[in-house]
Formats: sequence, C-alpha cells, structure tokens
Amino acid sequence: MTEARTETTPQDWWRTSIIEMQPGMIRYRGYPIEDLIGRVGFVDMIYLMTRGELPSRPAARLLEAALVSAVDHGPQAPSIAVARMAITCGIGINNAMASAINTLGDVHGGAGEQCVELYQAISGRLAESERGAEAIKQAAADEIDALKAKGIRHVPGFGHRFHPLDPRAPRLLELVDDCARAGAVGGLFAAIARAVEDVLAERRGGRRVPMNIDGATAVIFAELGFPPPLCRGLFVLSRSVGVLAHAWEESQSDYRNKGPIPRQTIWTYDGPAARPVPEPDGSPE
Amino acid sequence: MTEARTETTPQDWWRTSIIEMQPGMIRYRGYPIEDLIGRVGFVDMIYLMTRGELPSRPAARLLEAALVSAVDHGPQAPSIAVARMAITCGIGINNAMASAINTLGDVHGGAGEQCVELYQAISGRLAESERGAEAIKQAAADEIDALKAKGIRHVPGFGHRFHPLDPRAPRLLELVDDCARAGAVGGLFAAIARAVEDVLAERRGGRRVPMNIDGATAVIFAELGFPPPLCRGLFVLSRSVGVLAHAWEESQSDYRNKGPIPRQTIWTYDGPAARPVPEPDGSPE
Amino acid sequence: MTEARTETTPQDWWRTSIIEMQPGMIRYRGYPIEDLIGRVGFVDMIYLMTRGELPSRPAARLLEAALVSAVDHGPQAPSIAVARMAITCGIGINNAMASAINTLGDVHGGAGEQCVELYQAISGRLAESERGAEAIKQAAADEIDALKAKGIRHVPGFGHRFHPLDPRAPRLLELVDDCARAGAVGGLFAAIARAVEDVLAERRGGRRVPMNIDGATAVIFAELGFPPPLCRGLFVLSRSVGVLAHAWEESQSDYRNKGPIPRQTIWTYDGPAARPVPEPDGSPE
Amino acid sequence: MTEARTETTPQDWWRTSIIEMQPGMIRYRGYPIEDLIGRVGFVDMIYLMTRGELPSRPAARLLEAALVSAVDHGPQAPSIAVARMAITCGIGINNAMASAINTLGDVHGGAGEQCVELYQAISGRLAESERGAEAIKQAAADEIDALKAKGIRHVPGFGHRFHPLDPRAPRLLELVDDCARAGAVGGLFAAIARAVEDVLAERRGGRRVPMNIDGATAVIFAELGFPPPLCRGLFVLSRSVGVLAHAWEESQSDYRNKGPIPRQTIWTYDGPAARPVPEPDGSPE
Repeated sequence: MTEARTETTPQDWWRTSIIEMQPGMIRYRGYPIEDLIGRVGFVDMIYLMTRGELPSRPAARLLEAALVSAVDHGPQAPSIAVARMAITCGIGINNAMASAINTLGDVHGGAGEQCVELYQAISGRLAESERGAEAIKQAAADEIDALKAKGIRHVPGFGHRFHPLDPRAPRLLELVDDCARAGAVGGLFAAIARAVEDVLAERRGGRRVPMNIDGATAVIFAELGFPPPLCRGLFVLSRSVGVLAHAWEESQSDYRNKGPIPRQTIWTYDGPAARPVPEPDGSPE
Repeated sequence: MTEARTETTPQDWWRTSIIEMQPGMIRYRGYPIEDLIGRVGFVDMIYLMTRGELPSRPAARLLEAALVSAVDHGPQAPSIAVARMAITCGIGINNAMASAINTLGDVHGGAGEQCVELYQAISGRLAESERGAEAIKQAAADEIDALKAKGIRHVPGFGHRFHPLDPRAPRLLELVDDCARAGAVGGLFAAIARAVEDVLAERRGGRRVPMNIDGATAVIFAELGFPPPLCRGLFVLSRSVGVLAHAWEESQSDYRNKGPIPRQTIWTYDGPAARPVPEPDGSPE
Repeated sequence: MTEARTETTPQDWWRTSIIEMQPGMIRYRGYPIEDLIGRVGFVDMIYLMTRGELPSRPAARLLEAALVSAVDHGPQAPSIAVARMAITCGIGINNAMASAINTLGDVHGGAGEQCVELYQAISGRLAESERGAEAIKQAAADEIDALKAKGIRHVPGFGHRFHPLDPRAPRLLELVDDCARAGAVGGLFAAIARAVEDVLAERRGGRRVPMNIDGATAVIFAELGFPPPLCRGLFVLSRSVGVLAHAWEESQSDYRNKGPIPRQTIWTYDGPAARPVPEPDGSPE
Repeated sequence: MTEARTETTPQDWWRTSIIEMQPGMIRYRGYPIEDLIGRVGFVDMIYLMTRGELPSRPAARLLEAALVSAVDHGPQAPSIAVARMAITCGIGINNAMASAINTLGDVHGGAGEQCVELYQAISGRLAESERGAEAIKQAAADEIDALKAKGIRHVPGFGHRFHPLDPRAPRLLELVDDCARAGAVGGLFAAIARAVEDVLAERRGGRRVPMNIDGATAVIFAELGFPPPLCRGLFVLSRSVGVLAHAWEESQSDYRNKGPIPRQTIWTYDGPAARPVPEPDGSPE
C-alpha cells in the first residue's frame, strides 16, 4: 500500500466552511440561524450558502428572476414527465423529485452552465481596455468559430426547438439592463449575449436564432459571478419547484404505475420475429 | 383483458392545470411567464405552483422563513454527506443532488409532514366552538395517547438528538405569532404545537421535550394550509440548497471516490473467518 | 444533549459481516474472492451476499428462474420508460438506471414483497400438523378476509391489468413443483399460492384471477426463505437488466431530451384561463 | 416553430427491438419468456437483453466471472456507504439502491468503460497482419503517450490506491487465457492488457503498476465485444448485488439517519467566525 498514512481524522475528512454546529447552535457562514430567519430571503440564503456572503439587493433580485423563470416547461420535459410517472409507483415525493432531478444532465439541464462557459470564454478574449461593441462582436465570432472547430454544432443558450421566440428571455434581459443602468452589475455579459445573437443571425443570412431561457439566465449567472457548474445547480433548484408541483398534482390522480402513453396504446416492436430458444447443448454453445 | 379500451388520448394522459404552453407562450396557472418574472418572488412561485394561487405577502414571508430555516444541518446529516461523497464520483451536480434528496425519506425528511398530520389530527378533535387553551390541551393529550396506542413512541417534531434546544424553533414561532396578531394567519396550529409541548413535559415529570425545526416548520405549513405530503416537498426544496452548497464545496477538493471515513481507517468485520469455497458437486448442493 | 457519548469508533460505525478487506485481500462472507471467481455463478453470489451462505444447486436454479422472468415488461412500465427518457438527457448510464430503479416502489416493485408477506401470513396460520389442502385453503381464505378488513382490495400477486393469463407464472410454478418433488424445497408456498387462486375464484363466482409474475416469484422467494424486503431487492436486480438494455438501445437513437409523447403532441391543459398578475400591493397581499 | 410536424405516433415514439408484448404474450428478442425461464441462466439473459442474441457458453462463463468479481468493495466505497446510509432514512430498498448506483459515475464506475476504450484504441492501432508481441507493445506505448498528451495522468484499469496487487485480476486473466486456448475468444485484448502493464513498468523503472479489477474485467468485456458504455452498465449490475446486501444488513441495525461518522464526532469547521447579520438596508445592499 503506497498511500502515506497521514493523520487525517474523521473530523478533518468532513471539513467544511459552510456550517458550524454545536448542541444548541447552528451558524451558516458565521451567521447564527436564528438571526437569518425572518431577516433574509430564501434567495439570499441560496446565494449565501453557495457563495459565502449575502448578496446585494439587486443581485438577489436578478437571481430571483432567474430562479422564477425556469420552474417548469410542461410534461413534455423529461424531468416533469419522470416526476409524474414516478409518483404513481408508490415512492415518496422526495424519491419522485430525485428521479426527476437526476435527468437534468448535460443535455436537459446543462445548457445554462455551458452558456456561462461560452460567455466567459468570450469575455476572456477581450482585453480590459477593449470592450466596445465591435471588439465584443469580434470575440463572439471568434469563440463561435472555436466551438465549431471543436465540432459543437449547436451554440448553447440560443434557439429553441419549440418556441420561435422564448418569452422568458427578453424579460430577463430587460431586468439585467435595469440593473446595469443602475450600476449594480457590469452589463458586459448582456452585451456579449446580444453579440452572440447578432453573429448567429449574420451567419444564417439574417435569420435570427434568438436567445432562449438558458442564454438569458446565463447572462444573469455570469453577471453575478457564479462558476459554471453552480449554474446547473441553480437550475436544479428552480426546476425542482415544477417537479414538486407536477408530482403533487399527479399524486391526486388515480393512476398507478403510470406509463408514458395510455394503456391501450402498444409500442412498436421491430426486433426478431418469434423464434424458439435453442437447445442448451446446441447452437448457442 | 378486462380493461375497457376507453378513448384516452396521449394529450389527456398528460392533462395538467399547472402549465399551458404554445409556441412562444408559457403560462403558469394562467399567468404569462413574462409577467411573473421580476414581479413575484421565488417563494411566491413555489406557492403558486403547488397551491394554484399567489400567496398573500404574510403567507409568503412565513413560507420563506420556513424554507430559510432548513437548508442545512451539516455533514452528519445523511443527505449532506451523500451529496459530498457523490460529487467526488464523477457524476453531474444534479446527480449528486438527486442521490442526496433521495435520502429525505420518512425518517430523514418526513417529520415535518408527520407533524402536520399530528396537528391536523388534534385540530380535527376540536369543535369549532371549543378552541380555548384547555380544549386544545385535552385534544393534544388525546391525540398523543392515540399515537402511543398505535405504537408510535416518538412524537414527530419534538425533541432533538443533538440540540437540547433547537435554535430555529422559537424564532419561527415568533414569526407565526406576529402574523397571528396581525390577523394574517389563525394561530390555531401554534397553540396546538405549544399544547403538545406542555403535554409532553407533564408526562415526563416536567422535563421539556422542546419543539424542533420540524415541529416549528409544521406550524407554518399547517397555518398556511399545505397538505402533509407537500410539506415534505417543501423541505426537499429547502434542503436542496444545502445539498448544492456542500456538493459544490466538495467538488473543489481533490478527493476522488470519497468514502465516509479516511482511507487509512478500515471498518470492523464480524462475519465468518476465512474459509475455502466448497466443491461444486459437494456440500453446497 | 441526552445521548450517551459511548466510545463508538468510525471502524465500528461501519461494522459489517459481508466483506473483509486488507491490502491485497478481499473476502466475501469468509470466501477469498479469487476462489469464488470462476467457481460460483452470479446467482450464487447474489444468494451468498444477501443470505450469508452459498445456495444449494436447486435453490440457485429456482432463484435464477425468478431473476430471468422479471427483467423487462416493456416501455409502458414506468421503470423502462424512465430509463429511456433519462438516457437522452445527457447523464451517465448508471444515472439513467438509478432514476429508473428509483421508481420500483410499493406499487411498481413491491407486489412480490407484499405477496411473500401474504404467503407467510397464511403459513403462520397453519399448525405444523395441519398442512393438508383443506387447512391451507381455510387459512388462505381467513388471510384474504383479514386483508379486506384492513381495506386492501387488491390481493398482491394475483390478476393482471394487461395479461389475462401471465405466461411467466405457470412456468415458474412448474419449476417449483419439480424441485418440491425432488425434495429440494418444501412446496408449502406453492400450495398456499394455488389455494389463494382457488379462494379468489370462488369469491368471484368461478372467474379466476390467475397468479401473476409477482405471485409466482413470491412462491420461489418464500420457498427459499428470503425475508420480504429482500424480495423487492431481488426484483430490482432482475429489472435492472431490462433497464440497462432499454437505456442502451435508446442511447443509440438521435433523441435529445426525449419526452413521453412525440413533440407535436401537446398535452391537455385544464387550469385557469389567461389572467394578469395582480399588482404587488394589491389583491395578493 | 421550425420543426416539421412528421406523423410520429406514440407507438413509434416508443419503438424497441427488445421486447414484444400482447395480452398473454411476452417475447424478448423473439424468444417467448416461458421458453427462456428454466432454460437459460441470468447471465445469458443479461447478454441476450443487451446484445440481441444468446451468448455461447464460454462467453457466458467469462461474463459471469466478471459479474461475480465486482459485487462489493466494502463500506469505504461511496456506493456501498451511500446504500447503508440511505436505508436508515426511511426509504424503500429500491430507493437506497438507486442513490448508491447513482454514484457509479466516471470516477467511481467508469474505469472499466474507459479501459475498454483504451484497449480498443490500442487494437485500432494494429494492422490485421501485425499482432505479434512487439507490435502490440508498441501500439500500447503509443496509446499511453497519446493519453498523456491529452493530459490523462492515470491509465484506467491499472494500479490501485489500496491493493498493491488486486487479487481479482490474475484470476480473471487466467479464465480468459483458458478460453483463448480453447479458441472461444481471440485473446488479443488479454495480450494488449499485459502489454500495457509492461509499458507502464518500463516507464517506472521496473516498478509494476498491476492491472486492477477494472483492467481485468475490461479484458473480458472487450474480448466479448461489448461497447464501452454498456460495460459501465454491466458493472452497475454487478455492484448492485453488494449494494443490496449492505442496504439489507444495515436495515437490520437500529440506526436512524445514519451519518458518515459516529454522532459524537463533530466535523471540522473552517469558515468565517460568528458574525451578525447585516441590516437589510445596510451593507449587504
């Protein structure tokens, strides 16, 4: 065994800077819980727990808008459908929520995270001194080229398979603009996101590929300085609300073991036709 | 096949009253999403999605306090430990959150739900006309007797294995009292909870078994009219914040496949001593 | 803090009689792993790990048949549908499997477990000396009455919403009968299961409610002495095979975020019609 | 909405070649279930369901050995610890298994899959005509160089943080060699795996980095032609057995909400010292 037997204790193994506890005492990031309750909002707590400090009020407002915007996208979304099916199977509501949240992977829940990475990559191409519209657009174009060179066809955060114009995106951007005008956030990432939209439109001969919910919440997350993987976590917190609502609604129905389609609808089978099992000492040997 | 082949369509199979959607249009409970964003808070959305209507401001404040209070109870809580271990195993942050939330079952996440049921059962014993302190205390005593008769030793929501006095409970009750004085909630469930505390103390010769976080949040949930199973869902939403924060913190460490105790600490084995595998045609037949 | 601070060490906290390990050494239930590999089958290992000893060969054969029989019930089963949807969301195949397995709750995965409990309860009504056909039938009738008195309408393990006759059940019973004739199992639980079928038919005026897969595998599990909750675990092991096969097949498709119904099929909405969000200082206060 | 409204029906949406079902009829890959039960083994079914055909007997034996070898690695493994903690939280045994299986990600469950990819990449460097020892070793060296160039420090399937020599690996390789000598498998991947071991030893000045369980099962999976992502699925099937055994054992204990370390062991906190919550209109704005 090559591993050095260092004197790690179980206490150190579970080291954290988030919560301190003694009998009768709970502190989050140094703040006694009884002083937080009734004084700070739930969104403030989300920020405090994940970032280490309480947010400014404008920051909390922006984060709140992002969290409000993504709670649900209907039973066609796998996360919602899974929640509804799972709750009819005789498991707890937390288990149904877990099965659903578990589906929020790179494809279903990762676009916001990937889009923050994109915005940060574009931002990283800009010198501090060059943040004019032209420089931003050039950086966006370069980064989109870089994505394509890596074989990524679809720019995360832009375009939508269902909504020609995602009604959530312009409203979220409007709130970011308000904050930027008030000096509460820098506004660079809003400019970057719009530059991406422009570049995409130019490359499609003027046909716009508008920002979607992920592109817009990514602007907020990036303006607030969230690291990309945390952004997926924020989306999970938001979508969990819809997951809970749908699981609850379905639990009020009479369905048991609810499948994806009505029971009288049989799926299509396209495998081998009926055949006998080979003799054990015959061909399958 | 005895089942009648009714004409259920896939559309009806996925019927919901939560969300309406068309290309370019998203409405929750009738409200256009773009009108909700920036206008209502995240806690309002939680209420709207699960209850069907927006909450009054005092109701939202109380719900917010309950959600703030339960976000985290440290790495000794299985939910938090699981989140931290899971994230070191090479899965997405949503997957780590799912594994953790999945543990919030009857024992780890169900006390609030069970306590709301207890309060409602006590309330159900009261006639509309008899809601004085004595009647409430009698109903509480009767219900506790009924629990015992069913073999339930531990009254959910009271006492704590770690905190002699749970610092979250008095603060939450204080907020409920404020709301009750302002007429925003009835206050009956706060009275019921305190009556339970009194009855338990009397039965233990004066030694108090104080209300814990679950007993206190259950007062809020019951005052706001949440059905019990939804209360576990609310706890999941709250605890998800701590789960995310800890998963994120742990992901910043260098651990891979983090187990529960340091690697040099071997567990205790108390099974059979070393033995040979029996011959296949010998004893195990 | 009332808890006695006993000297539990982390080693003792993780005490087990299943596995012993030292650097370079792994033993399951006392058997060195290198002596098990190639000598015992996978089904033997399932038995050894859960029961503590290797099975006899007939026991392994019966367990094997039960495990073979329940691997899949098509995409109409929530477990299978969830696996297929989840894998299109950009998560690992283990995550898709977990979301699916998580749905195998009391309703979807619990009938076998509940049926073993039923058989054991009927067996518990029999004196050692009275195990003739009439005594068994009487005990079955009494237990079915007891179920009804508890409000349980549906006898677990009998009848099927889809199959008029479940093709798996008679074949499994045939294997149990073979083993019973050879003296390898007692055969009592096969007799009990058939008595349940007879009682149910008599109560429905001769219309049979035939044993289903859960009723038949429960005979095997009961004959082999598995405790009921382990039986759900065995079903999970079996169904995991179908879950994996379907997740894998779906992963070869081009779908991303596959929902339950084709994209052009919108669900039915039956909630409130479109309405404006109330003013923040207006009615929702 | 740019998507063409093709006439996909719900039936086609759930197309599969794995299972065909009608009332009273179940066929897997064309074989009637009642003909499979009692005729083929559980491992045969795993192969049939995932590959489409029944395996030869030697193939089934090798797969069986791989499945036997990975069932458990003790409570220090996150998967096992999570199963044990989760079952004490008041959830079903399937839920505890799901939480555990969910942790078998790229780091905890992915090494076998990654190692199959490695072996296939080495194989892909070989011309059909050049499969001598020297050519294989050169291809292995080239591929290891390629891994390093991509920044992958650790070669998957080789070396172990706990076992100086993994007792499972040589036994598994012995079985592969037996099969290769009998002509039942090609043996190329066994040769490749040994070449990787040799190259690694040479690069470490003779110090061997022996094949571990993942490296050895990957040989079997590669010899049998399993695509890499399926290999993680096979590991999940195997480890699920240990997960079930440990969940069951723990469920027989008295623990409730079992955390990672004994209750009297408090974790280390290294965050901010106690501090007051700022005034709402003060600094946090």
